[in-house]
Amino acid sequence: MSLIVQKYGGSSVADAESIKRVAKRIVETRRRGADVVVVVSAMGDTTDELLDLAHEVVPGLPAHGRELDMLLTAGERISMALLAMAITSMGGEALSLTGSQAGMLTDATHGSARIVSVTPGRVRAALDEGRIVIVQGFAGFNKVTGDITTLGRGGSDTSAVALAAALGADVCEIYTDVDGVFTTDPRIVPRARKVDRITSEEMLELASAGAKVLHIRSVEYARRHGVTLHVRSSFTNQEGTIVYDPEKEGTMEEAQIVGVASDLGEAKITIVGVPDVPGTAARIFTIVAEAEANVDMIVQNVSAAATGRTDITFTLPKEDAARALAALEAAREEVGFEQVLHDDQIGKLALVGAGMRTNVGVSAKLFRALSDAGINLELISTSEIRISVVTSAAQLHDAVRVVHSAFGLDADTDAVVHAGTGR
Amino acid sequence: MSLIVQKYGGSSVADAESIKRVAKRIVETRRRGADVVVVVSAMGDTTDELLDLAHEVVPGLPAHGRELDMLLTAGERISMALLAMAITSMGGEALSLTGSQAGMLTDATHGSARIVSVTPGRVRAALDEGRIVIVQGFAGFNKVTGDITTLGRGGSDTSAVALAAALGADVCEIYTDVDGVFTTDPRIVPRARKVDRITSEEMLELASAGAKVLHIRSVEYARRHGVTLHVRSSFTNQEGTIVYDPEKEGTMEEAQIVGVASDLGEAKITIVGVPDVPGTAARIFTIVAEAEANVDMIVQNVSAAATGRTDITFTLPKEDAARALAALEAAREEVGFEQVLHDDQIGKLALVGAGMRTNVGVSAKLFRALSDAGINLELISTSEIRISVVTSAAQLHDAVRVVHSAFGLDADTDAVVHAGTGR
Repeated sequence: MSLIVQKYGGSSVADAESIKRVAKRIVETRRRGADVVVVVSAMGDTTDELLDLAHEVVPGLPAHGRELDMLLTAGERISMALLAMAITSMGGEALSLTGSQAGMLTDATHGSARIVSVTPGRVRAALDEGRIVIVQGFAGFNKVTGDITTLGRGGSDTSAVALAAALGADVCEIYTDVDGVFTTDPRIVPRARKVDRITSEEMLELASAGAKVLHIRSVEYARRHGVTLHVRSSFTNQEGTIVYDPEKEGTMEEAQIVGVASDLGEAKITIVGVPDVPGTAARIFTIVAEAEANVDMIVQNVSAAATGRTDITFTLPKEDAARALAALEAAREEVGFEQVLHDDQIGKLALVGAGMRTNVGVSAKLFRALSDAGINLELISTSEIRISVVTSAAQLHDAVRVVHSAFGLDADTDAVVHAGTGR
Repeated sequence: MSLIVQKYGGSSVADAESIKRVAKRIVETRRRGADVVVVVSAMGDTTDELLDLAHEVVPGLPAHGRELDMLLTAGERISMALLAMAITSMGGEALSLTGSQAGMLTDATHGSARIVSVTPGRVRAALDEGRIVIVQGFAGFNKVTGDITTLGRGGSDTSAVALAAALGADVCEIYTDVDGVFTTDPRIVPRARKVDRITSEEMLELASAGAKVLHIRSVEYARRHGVTLHVRSSFTNQEGTIVYDPEKEGTMEEAQIVGVASDLGEAKITIVGVPDVPGTAARIFTIVAEAEANVDMIVQNVSAAATGRTDITFTLPKEDAARALAALEAAREEVGFEQVLHDDQIGKLALVGAGMRTNVGVSAKLFRALSDAGINLELISTSEIRISVVTSAAQLHDAVRVVHSAFGLDADTDAVVHAGTGR
């Protein structure tokens, strides 16, 4: 018998009606002859509402990690129990299990625990009894402290993938409120196409570059454990996007380019006049890391031999910029650089595709398309299957449209007309 | 060091402000040098809201006991985590524990589990580390099934008393929104007085007879395990009512009468013309029990020798009456009685006091007072420390006022004036 793990996000179980709709889908999946394990997030805005309550009780909300985990997991507890009731009332036999009962064992890092092992003995036993098992997303358990932990925001995706890996599931279906993974953000490019298949490596690059549909950590986990994901809408019965491991499923003929991600959430910091001596870059990024700023792209210009100095530029999330700037300014004399420049009006575009490994000329084509459209590039950085560029924030959406077209990703006109008229 | 168990009901932790107020009281108790364990209910109407959600998802709400327990315990989880955060933010060191973590082991009866043992090792360890321990009320854990259970409505009182017993606490303080136990319902008799001390046996009789301030089950548990209760308001610092075990604390000079309870929630059923042969009463009450009706008072008249038949009257909660009537009607031929009469316009009054054991004439005084006021009695039933009478529903409140005065329970005039003018 095949085994399917399904994960439903908060928007799919936002109210009683949604829970009943999802329950129906689960019962139908079971009736088609598959074993079903369901991972569920908290209903709608429950997590935010609980956080608001915590802020009211403790203004500023200092680090109450353990108690915050205790609080927030109440959200998933509510949705999982309601979903189990709904399924049972429709003739299915459901059993809800907490993260602890499902064997989601983690370290003791409250708020962002890492999974150390998954021991789903009780899940397996319930499946063997013919039951549909509903597992609390987001929640884990530390055996040493005996305490409840959480996997951090978006952690339910990771819960689902980890369970799918531990149970050897055939597929892990991630239900969301969009139809799947798109070649780019349809709000920017109306002709964006749904991607039918994408490798986990490509998905990881897209997610890292700003595509929001899947949590990076869950994609990493899926890639490491060879779990096939199916990202799809809980509002339709259409196929969504398969995220697969080419080593496991065999290499298909790969598309050259799978998609264009974009991100307006980063800022750029340039450190001017850095002494070009060994160890300086390491010192700079140690300072930035100690300020708890997450660096994304890093570019160092070739040193101007005459001056013995160079410039180092990096991007980071906008909310981390102030901390990084303060830490750098404080270390100016120690490191010996001239000045720090800051720009938060930037946009990042990433072109992703496993096919670029074997296709020369992808970057040339990208730069040509952007140049023809009069778009200036401030930074360029590449990985094996990704090219990222930074533009001004104002030009980002134009850049995405131009690149999407240049690489033949636009959908055909008919599809656009249907979507555009809302039929 | 003394050890105090405090229990806060839903009205004491209804919102963020209340939680902060309660946290302050807990921190002050700790600073005065006592170890403190706190049992907390769900915030305000949370339990009812969760039940409403369940009704929306599954209209009619069939027996989903396990999932309903999973759902409802989310309420206490939220309040206990918030309370722990608030205490820690005020400089206390709090740790919240679920029913399972606190060792509240129960049988597997979902929705109304019975405590089989309390193993509060983790509570004790946290106290030894100087922490204030917040324990989830209402919730238990069954070791055999590995499932979360609940103790039923009002179960948080029982959680607190059971923990106090297991930890050998000096006192179990039950915080509520009234000042303590009153000689009668102040909404009926404005001159009702707060009782300073009452034996657990008297408290049990008052609670059984309709006084709502404490859950019967928690009083039983306290009596069986010799736990001293202190029922008091979370809105003032006044002493409330001490519920004590006279065998443990030594017999004090007991008041003759401690209070008058009343109850409009019962109905009366009379079975007319019951054959006066052995085993008939047993058969009748087996039928009633199988209809899941909870019988309260039972009175059988002396048989009229000429007819060989007798009448049996009993009272039961109004909501159980229809089930009992249907079951009895169905068994009329089998049992051989003539007819069943039903009256749901009755009121029950109970006079309670350990002193009536040694005072003759209490019942005579009671009947005289009621008779002088023109109040007709439909049923009389007595226990060692209680006399219960049934009147018409319309006359009940008059009866309570008359009896309260006749036994000298009215407060002095001054107190009444202050209360009446709202100063």
